[in-house]
Amino acid sequence: MEKTAVVVGSGNVALHLTRALMKAGVQVLMIYSRTAANALDAGRLLGVPATSIWSEIPTEASFYFYAVSDNALNELLARDLAPAAVHIHTAGSISMDVFGANKPYHGVLYPLQTFSKNKELDFRQVPLFVEASSSGVLLIISELAASIAGSIYEISSSQRMQLHLAAVYACNFVNHMYTIAGDLVKLSGLPFVILRPLIAETASKIEFISPAEAQTGPAVRRDTSVMNKHMELLNNHPNYKEIYQLLSDSISSKK
Amino acid sequence: MEKTAVVVGSGNVALHLTRALMKAGVQVLMIYSRTAANALDAGRLLGVPATSIWSEIPTEASFYFYAVSDNALNELLARDLAPAAVHIHTAGSISMDVFGANKPYHGVLYPLQTFSKNKELDFRQVPLFVEASSSGVLLIISELAASIAGSIYEISSSQRMQLHLAAVYACNFVNHMYTIAGDLVKLSGLPFVILRPLIAETASKIEFISPAEAQTGPAVRRDTSVMNKHMELLNNHPNYKEIYQLLSDSISSKK
Repeated sequence: MEKTAVVVGSGNVALHLTRALMKAGVQVLMIYSRTAANALDAGRLLGVPATSIWSEIPTEASFYFYAVSDNALNELLARDLAPAAVHIHTAGSISMDVFGANKPYHGVLYPLQTFSKNKELDFRQVPLFVEASSSGVLLIISELAASIAGSIYEISSSQRMQLHLAAVYACNFVNHMYTIAGDLVKLSGLPFVILRPLIAETASKIEFISPAEAQTGPAVRRDTSVMNKHMELLNNHPNYKEIYQLLSDSISSKK
Repeated sequence: MEKTAVVVGSGNVALHLTRALMKAGVQVLMIYSRTAANALDAGRLLGVPATSIWSEIPTEASFYFYAVSDNALNELLARDLAPAAVHIHTAGSISMDVFGANKPYHGVLYPLQTFSKNKELDFRQVPLFVEASSSGVLLIISELAASIAGSIYEISSSQRMQLHLAAVYACNFVNHMYTIAGDLVKLSGLPFVILRPLIAETASKIEFISPAEAQTGPAVRRDTSVMNKHMELLNNHPNYKEIYQLLSDSISSKK
């Protein structure tokens, strides 16, 4: 029997997840977004029926995915919808307890990855972290997960939240460092692209050696002469200077 | 005529640079380190004569490279050595003015990359930033640089310092984020390796879209509910918590 799904949400995770489900042969019956324009855009982009009207969501799907903001999730799950189906949210920091008695078969499928609209990626390389309301539902969700990605891990809600927190450092904060570096490079009259080999090598290194072993730069050498010069260069950027000081201290204290 | 060089220093940059010079057909006559054990190790590793005795350094080389700590550089350049040769330092944050009248032909060759002892890399992919005491010396250094790497840029000492500062964010601070993420993942009982696809994708994204466009996570969404949960999880890690707060504020303020 063909698997069918509805995806609630039209953000980056919803779009990439829908694409992955379709690639795995799951029939996505509909995409729902509270905002009509977003529903329309997502439907067109993916070639899937879309709606912003709750009552139009088909009730016969086997899976309902919720890839929406944490605030929206509570509100949407309170609404009644297909009580016999399996309901799955994708949030890193929301406990599985968020599902109420109106959705007895439920679980979580958390993809540990950063998704942007204008950047394709191979979903098969994304590690998926699953949790479910019962061992039976766990089996069903794990089987579906295995059809869209290569590595599946069963973890608890509290492990997932810890993992999401780690991901903020490994991805969101890292990307912000790229942003600042780009700003600073521009001030020297050079283009951002000259940083790419450095960024690629920094990420590639930790596939071979631990981050502790990979640490280089003035802070780990406690080279105060260089650090003082850098702090002086940042006099007109108090925010970047504060970040420089705090992170350099943190690196030096690890040594 | 075969090019000959002496490398002063035995750290990560010195080792990778020596290897790159040798690959390009430059004959490295000797490696010097102030520490006898380091000189011995470097010499053995690279199959090059090594010494820790200044007077043993050959004076007939065409190039003398200085890849040493900023403090050591001043002291070593004050010593007299081969006044007719070209002397080159590799430091990001030291002005070319560091060379005195005893070394009239001099310049800088700054590799924008992170070098670790136990991680090989393709030096041809490293962007090199050069500066020289005269247009004649610039030509000589640029020609040598082109034989060991693919992209060569001429920049001033102040541009180089700004670039070095940017590299601290793009590499050293990024790597520290990996360290913290690894610590936090371990607390959830999961291995560091599960972060690798996320780290790789985060670095790869900025080859296609700008870091500003690539920014994801709770701070850019101003999702205070998630951020508060994360801050609570960090109650036992005041240093990580301070970093979380400062970087989240910085990301939100960019939006």
